[in-house]
Amino acid sequence: SALKLGMIPADGIGKEVLPAAQRVLEALGSSIPKPTFIPLKAGWEEFQANGKALPDETVKILKEECDAAMFGSVSSPSHKVAGYSSPIVALRKHLDLYANVRPVSSVPIPNQKSYHQCDMVIVRENTECLYIKKEEIKTNDDGSKIALATRQITSRASSRIGKMAFEIALRRGQERQQAKEAGKDVWWNGEPKVTIVHKSNVLSVTDGLFRESVRAIKEGTDRYNGVKMEEQLVDSMVYRMFREPEIFDVAVAPNLYGDIISDGAAALVGSLGLVPSINAGDDFVMGEPVHGSAPDIEGQNIANPIASIRSAALLLSSLGYVEPASRINAAVDAVLTEGQYLTPDLGGKSSTTDVTEAILKRL
Amino acid sequence: SALKLGMIPADGIGKEVLPAAQRVLEALGSSIPKPTFIPLKAGWEEFQANGKALPDETVKILKEECDAAMFGSVSSPSHKVAGYSSPIVALRKHLDLYANVRPVSSVPIPNQKSYHQCDMVIVRENTECLYIKKEEIKTNDDGSKIALATRQITSRASSRIGKMAFEIALRRGQERQQAKEAGKDVWWNGEPKVTIVHKSNVLSVTDGLFRESVRAIKEGTDRYNGVKMEEQLVDSMVYRMFREPEIFDVAVAPNLYGDIISDGAAALVGSLGLVPSINAGDDFVMGEPVHGSAPDIEGQNIANPIASIRSAALLLSSLGYVEPASRINAAVDAVLTEGQYLTPDLGGKSSTTDVTEAILKRL
Ligand SMILES: CC(C)[C@H](C(=O)O)[C@@H](O)C(=O)O
Ligand SMILES: CC(C)[C@H](C(=O)O)[C@@H](O)C(=O)O
Repeated sequence: SALKLGMIPADGIGKEVLPAAQRVLEALGSSIPKPTFIPLKAGWEEFQANGKALPDETVKILKEECDAAMFGSVSSPSHKVAGYSSPIVALRKHLDLYANVRPVSSVPIPNQKSYHQCDMVIVRENTECLYIKKEEIKTNDDGSKIALATRQITSRASSRIGKMAFEIALRRGQERQQAKEAGKDVWWNGEPKVTIVHKSNVLSVTDGLFRESVRAIKEGTDRYNGVKMEEQLVDSMVYRMFREPEIFDVAVAPNLYGDIISDGAAALVGSLGLVPSINAGDDFVMGEPVHGSAPDIEGQNIANPIASIRSAALLLSSLGYVEPASRINAAVDAVLTEGQYLTPDLGGKSSTTDVTEAILKRL
Repeated sequence: SALKLGMIPADGIGKEVLPAAQRVLEALGSSIPKPTFIPLKAGWEEFQANGKALPDETVKILKEECDAAMFGSVSSPSHKVAGYSSPIVALRKHLDLYANVRPVSSVPIPNQKSYHQCDMVIVRENTECLYIKKEEIKTNDDGSKIALATRQITSRASSRIGKMAFEIALRRGQERQQAKEAGKDVWWNGEPKVTIVHKSNVLSVTDGLFRESVRAIKEGTDRYNGVKMEEQLVDSMVYRMFREPEIFDVAVAPNLYGDIISDGAAALVGSLGLVPSINAGDDFVMGEPVHGSAPDIEGQNIANPIASIRSAALLLSSLGYVEPASRINAAVDAVLTEGQYLTPDLGGKSSTTDVTEAILKRL
């Protein structure tokens, strides 16, 4: 059997970091089914060339032929462009990838300005909130304009993302327990914990529904008795993440708050170039680095490939290939803590290729 | 002539820090018109006691009798409570306080974990976005729920907040110039700068309108030729604020993004207990510390009074009393850099009263 992976580099440095992830996957040998990679098109450049940001063909092949996929990063026009709509947002919707799971954990990297103890997972709802893109604009008689957007929160989407968060917290608790029993150093001492992020002091109806739906997941069963539940208003969450990131385990948030806090968390661990994610649904999963297309460094072979490589590991682990995923992560950690091969975002001078090869060597 | 100030302590530590600000204002002597303080009611506790979070009387007195006001902080119920709505959001609306101006600047305080060079002003739109609180909820046939909120962005509100941001940038540029000429140490070397914060890659219509309206302010006149204009997506803004806060001067943002990034900025300078704000309209201004009501430390006389005291200074300066405002800020800076009187949020052991008195001594 083979593992068929759709590869969508899209724009900018996506085209440099996705091949790095591919090399790492290829190097895993028989620990995973032999991967085949199907290159697929999407993105702003694709839109400019052929008029569609997300060709139907791409969605069709993903649905019919692929076991999973990897996405690079996407550029956006700064002005509204007729017919253009972000392909990553559309893909999440088309494939019902309702959860964006973003583990953010710190590794001590030499010569960084500051080190924050941090090992959390942000579980971001991925299909609704302001991302439904229902917007309209009207011109008043006096020529002024009023634009409206709809923010949608449903009990269904909130419950399933809540369930995902509690399951992840439960699993993390078990993993920490096992690690402790194996004599490993585990700094998190308490119970696993889910922090619900919302702004129900202002959005009492929509965020109220999000909050209640997630709370009901824990309250409706004994399964999560061992998992603590807390809440943070989104503004306070950003504040606390920077003041005491070590207090967070799993955070669950509506789409836009999740987007914002995961970039914040990335700053904590040293670089957006380190933070991986998967977009996960019940039937499909797509790895995606959290960083953007970084047009300023495109084409220079200096983008950090680690976010993509870790996204590939996360993808494997969600497909059940836990051991090869750990091997990748261990190799990445080794390269980071050694500090000899670091891309410029981490203060180093290495190229994308150098870092990738250093990781390949330690696999 | 006298200066009539409405004082609305509202909930929690608001009741401890507002009196501290009052003491400082009283100590300014003849450098300002003699202030009279009119205590006014509002808040969650007021709602619980008398059924209204913002009594009509409070709004009436503010409008008819007060020259300006100071607000403390407000608690919120975690569940939706019929009839309750945040009084601070309502006050901003009732008094058309369309700008929330939040200067965030770092002072080297002894024994802090980290020091980030930061001297920026966040100019937050204060009347619309998701804060218009148009929300509805429906139950589907299957019992599941769908909640919708409307996010409103108008060209009018975006233009006026944009204008405010450029005016502040211009003034800061002039102040830095004067400080340099007076031989003072000014680390900002470049031109003044306005960073527009939005998420137009997803919200191309609403944030597109915000972005264009703010851009048009600069583009429509020569007045701001010396002010640079940049943009950041809100997620990227949070990331960059933590990575290189020193690159920002003035940031202008729609309401919710402004709320989130100002808490983030507060983490950078050591504590939410340090960050002041004014809610400013064309006819009225209300000082307000950026922190919340902090029920966990309420009643212990350990809340940091500095955010409120600095808010009073900001209020004075916006009323034209620039010299007494500078005196307050200089006294606060002296206390912080000495580091002898610090409240627990800054790692100290001093009380609210201790810190207030230390500031009074240095006035
Ligand atoms: C590119 C953009 C539409 C996207 C988002 O907002 O979801 C990105 O910021 C992300 O986090 O994946
Ligand atoms: C209390 C709350 C409604 C308020 C807001 O979101 O505006 C607060 O966070 C603030 O920043 O003043």
